[in-house]
Amino acid sequence: MGLSLEQARGIIQAALAAGRARDMRPLSVAVLDAGGHPIAFEREDGAPPGRFAIAQGKAFGAAMTGMGGRKQMSRAEAQPYFMAALNGVYGGQMVPVPGGVLVRDETGAIIGAVGVTGDTSDNDAAVALAGIAAVGLVGED
Amino acid sequence: MGLSLEQARGIIQAALAAGRARDMRPLSVAVLDAGGHPIAFEREDGAPPGRFAIAQGKAFGAAMTGMGGRKQMSRAEAQPYFMAALNGVYGGQMVPVPGGVLVRDETGAIIGAVGVTGDTSDNDAAVALAGIAAVGLVGED
Amino acid sequence: MGLSLEQARGIIQAALAAGRARDMRPLSVAVLDAGGHPIAFEREDGAPPGRFAIAQGKAFGAAMTGMGGRKQMSRAEAQPYFMAALNGVYGGQMVPVPGGVLVRDETGAIIGAVGVTGDTSDNDAAVALAGIAAVGLVGED
Amino acid sequence: MGLSLEQARGIIQAALAAGRARDMRPLSVAVLDAGGHPIAFEREDGAPPGRFAIAQGKAFGAAMTGMGGRKQMSRAEAQPYFMAALNGVYGGQMVPVPGGVLVRDETGAIIGAVGVTGDTSDNDAAVALAGIAAVGLVGED
Repeated sequence: MGLSLEQARGIIQAALAAGRARDMRPLSVAVLDAGGHPIAFEREDGAPPGRFAIAQGKAFGAAMTGMGGRKQMSRAEAQPYFMAALNGVYGGQMVPVPGGVLVRDETGAIIGAVGVTGDTSDNDAAVALAGIAAVGLVGED
Repeated sequence: MGLSLEQARGIIQAALAAGRARDMRPLSVAVLDAGGHPIAFEREDGAPPGRFAIAQGKAFGAAMTGMGGRKQMSRAEAQPYFMAALNGVYGGQMVPVPGGVLVRDETGAIIGAVGVTGDTSDNDAAVALAGIAAVGLVGED
Repeated sequence: MGLSLEQARGIIQAALAAGRARDMRPLSVAVLDAGGHPIAFEREDGAPPGRFAIAQGKAFGAAMTGMGGRKQMSRAEAQPYFMAALNGVYGGQMVPVPGGVLVRDETGAIIGAVGVTGDTSDNDAAVALAGIAAVGLVGED
Repeated sequence: MGLSLEQARGIIQAALAAGRARDMRPLSVAVLDAGGHPIAFEREDGAPPGRFAIAQGKAFGAAMTGMGGRKQMSRAEAQPYFMAALNGVYGGQMVPVPGGVLVRDETGAIIGAVGVTGDTSDNDAAVALAGIAAVGLVGED
């Protein structure tokens, strides 16, 4: 089974609550299905207008490559031309930094991806993981 | 003032509730700010995966042109080359049919746009208008 | 569960066999998952080189819209600007004619899409349906 | 003569068998003609959904430039701006790393290209070469 809208809402609510608890800057959170298609998105008041593309890009890159944003960033640092090329074949829609997190179910199957943007990349990743854990699923950074 | 995330959530919840009350097919709802940038989006379980692009496209066309989807469709029927050209300059991101609705505040200023897709275009527009009315704002189809 | 590679191969083999049995022109067959991503593709000898894009486009449009190619074509004939707009939001990747066929499992869930191109659109659709039936799944045109 | 569909199938089957024999991660294999157009593609179960673009990109870059992926990578490391520029003129569709392999016939003529993705780039290239050798053709990495 893929992520339900109810699970996606739960992830967003918990991620935004985690950001408020840590007094982060205004966050935006996208939840995608395993094929990289949006299920739900929210942008907090005060965030710059173009945040959808970044949140979506972090999650989309994770869904397409099967690597979380932290892993993508390591790869980009080791082989910048490789990650640039991957981004090219995916139409420039990847953002390979922390904040893109794979969502796995209890069997380990990838059922979606979450992208958070707004604070530092590390903080973005932390709240994405918190949001995923809050609905009983497993995030992979 | 622009639309807040709280208002955007309220629009989506009321639009989806209206769809459920009328037993419509699974709906997807995008709420954009006045600049055409996503604030919030939800896709109901059972909807085809690519619904974000359509919901966004209906709302984006309204935000860019200042015309609701019904007005855009009339224009498209009268002058197809004109709406095709507008769509070209906006990168093919418009969907000029009912279901794209402008959001005005009490002064008449456009503060955002809503796009609904999933049922007939007329039903999509009806639930968009219901969602906007539910938060005390004025929709223009 | 989504389509397996073994099922995708079975669909392609049976579709191509149906084309040979009816002495059709060289065919190309793409099998996509429910998110519109290729699982398998084959182009018969003698087909023009650019067939992947058409086979993929027929199947992709079906996966994104939840409508088979025949249904998309009817809609395109009734509301050409609407289907043109959908194609715009999907990056011009749809080919809304018969030959794009949804794949449903025994529960009715959409688990993929098949695109066939090479002969008449009606023949393309017929062999897509034959291929899907050959692996015990249900095609929707 | 170009690659036939039968040869393309043989390359894919042998490449996937080589990957299974070495217990590699799930692989995806694209076989293109000399003009860079897909003849056949398969993605193994368990691979991330977006693998077509990478497999195709590795093979496409080889077909367009006449250099295998290993040679392209060397060039990218020596002159990153040059390979980035080539990728630009080819629409961002190249992936210049090992796993893209030219296919030559017995006369040395380039008749196609193979792209493999899923494991390490070196392993991807090894199974591409194994697949090409299995059908009696010569791969160039």
